[in-house]
Amino acid sequence: MSKELSSMANIMLPQLENEMQAVLHFDGSKPDLFRGMMHYQMGWIDDQLQPIKPISGKRIRPLVCMLVCDASGGEWQQAVPAASGIEILHNFSLVHDDIEDVSPTRRGRPTIWKLWGEAQAINCGDAMFSQSHTAVGNLINTGTPPATVVKAMQLFDKTCFQLTEGQHRDMNFETRDDVSVDEYLEMITGKTAVLISYSTAVGAMVAGAPQETIDHYAAYGLNVGLAFQVIDDILGIWGEESRTGKSAATDIITKKKTLPVLFGLENCEPLRDIYREREADADFVRDVVQLLNDVGAREFADERAEEYSTAAIEHLTAAQPEGDSGKALFEITEVLLKRDM
Amino acid sequence: MSKELSSMANIMLPQLENEMQAVLHFDGSKPDLFRGMMHYQMGWIDDQLQPIKPISGKRIRPLVCMLVCDASGGEWQQAVPAASGIEILHNFSLVHDDIEDVSPTRRGRPTIWKLWGEAQAINCGDAMFSQSHTAVGNLINTGTPPATVVKAMQLFDKTCFQLTEGQHRDMNFETRDDVSVDEYLEMITGKTAVLISYSTAVGAMVAGAPQETIDHYAAYGLNVGLAFQVIDDILGIWGEESRTGKSAATDIITKKKTLPVLFGLENCEPLRDIYREREADADFVRDVVQLLNDVGAREFADERAEEYSTAAIEHLTAAQPEGDSGKALFEITEVLLKRDM
Repeated sequence: MSKELSSMANIMLPQLENEMQAVLHFDGSKPDLFRGMMHYQMGWIDDQLQPIKPISGKRIRPLVCMLVCDASGGEWQQAVPAASGIEILHNFSLVHDDIEDVSPTRRGRPTIWKLWGEAQAINCGDAMFSQSHTAVGNLINTGTPPATVVKAMQLFDKTCFQLTEGQHRDMNFETRDDVSVDEYLEMITGKTAVLISYSTAVGAMVAGAPQETIDHYAAYGLNVGLAFQVIDDILGIWGEESRTGKSAATDIITKKKTLPVLFGLENCEPLRDIYREREADADFVRDVVQLLNDVGAREFADERAEEYSTAAIEHLTAAQPEGDSGKALFEITEVLLKRDM
Repeated sequence: MSKELSSMANIMLPQLENEMQAVLHFDGSKPDLFRGMMHYQMGWIDDQLQPIKPISGKRIRPLVCMLVCDASGGEWQQAVPAASGIEILHNFSLVHDDIEDVSPTRRGRPTIWKLWGEAQAINCGDAMFSQSHTAVGNLINTGTPPATVVKAMQLFDKTCFQLTEGQHRDMNFETRDDVSVDEYLEMITGKTAVLISYSTAVGAMVAGAPQETIDHYAAYGLNVGLAFQVIDDILGIWGEESRTGKSAATDIITKKKTLPVLFGLENCEPLRDIYREREADADFVRDVVQLLNDVGAREFADERAEEYSTAAIEHLTAAQPEGDSGKALFEITEVLLKRDM
């Protein structure tokens, strides 16, 4: 990590954490169960509701939000409430996704529903959803003009709706064997890209940047999100175990319908047959990867990733980010999009 | 129903319905499943996603919101976006409550989770939650000043959080046998009263009423909500079957911890014993009602209902509601709080 990125992150992330803890009523003491479930999800306490050395996610989205605010001429501190809302929203979505996907663990710990039951977990997610909105509304306390706060809140609501539509599509795809590449791209737009796009757009919005700049940042975030997901899909099939930390071809073993697979299913009848008919054993994995290679699925996905990455860099360049935060944005983009394969 | 109330309702409710249909993308044609689940919950379509003669709730909260706006000197049309957000939020909460309570039917029809599974139902609720916020944000399109819109959105978020805390308490109470009367009152404040309080407060807020008036309307709504719930609790034990539409003493048969029961459990050891030890058969119901009568639980609940009702009317009077909408508010309050027992 460069000097710029690490020094910005070291200043910004503690303030983000303070803000989120205030919104979620965490003061370092043992909370009641209602608040405790949220604090557990944020990585601040253990399943006995006792404070721990935090086990949090990477906080990439809020970091990018604060960097964009700073790089587009604003005070990054002004964007902290929005950044905080984004991270709380992300964590809310994980609480509900884990119930919907019946996932027993997350970040190496039991999920909320696994510990406290589905009913409480649904409600815990709803409470975090509420507080993510409260967090964004706190922009009004940082000197942001009311009309801008309304716009930031409205775009947040639209983003939330797109997230739920993306999640709906994702769940629907599991039961369908005719999902098209275009439908898939719409799904990952909602499920992954719009929240990154919100993070970048709202940073510029709070900074009071001109609409054109806000639009470039929004497009930058959207393309970063799409590129990131497509690269993740490529790694899920062709990534080396030593670098991804997952076993090779993990997405083939689980028959996950990622971009290369959907391209293959659209363009290769034998692949459709073996996906329908065969169990996902070692032979299946070998044959599928062979067919995907033959039909050009890797090239197709590489090209999409390249397109999105190029568009992301172009929009970031056009937004003319300034100072150390500007440098940090280029670097973070490179880290996210040039993962070794 | 008086001339004032029915004529206001006849004008206001169709416009409310139009606004909600716009926010939830319903245009009378067959929707996709994602939108269809929401339209089904709103009572606009059947389980085949075909439009029907609407089977909706009573839309009391949004009606009161629009009436307050009109009665406090505003244009009621200006409050339609907030009214719409309130009703969508209420319906969202029913979708999740039905999953949490494992309720198979609602308004005589299967619940969302029963028809489309829990995962889709959780996500459907999340989408409605998002759109309830979008609806409130649309206040910006009705000429409401941005600073007022921000306040309306912030109070909405706070209300949502209180709702989830009320729901958490309600679920927790089921597994506890030491719930106090005070804890119960806190629970129904969150679960029932705050959303009615929001409905009345935001109507006055949008009308541009002075803070003192907004506060009176907020207190009016809160007390209406509390009185309504306590009266419901009384009816659940002593209500006549022919008038409540439910079988007599239904809350005793289900061992529900309502206000009179909790008062009884706090003040009568034999009641605690039989609640712990006996099954809820006909003898149990007869003995419980006898003990509740002996210990004065009915009087206690009647007094609370009377207190809240009086406070509601006092605050409504102090708010000085004007015109036909003012008369309609007094009437609707009477209808809600003087249900025959």
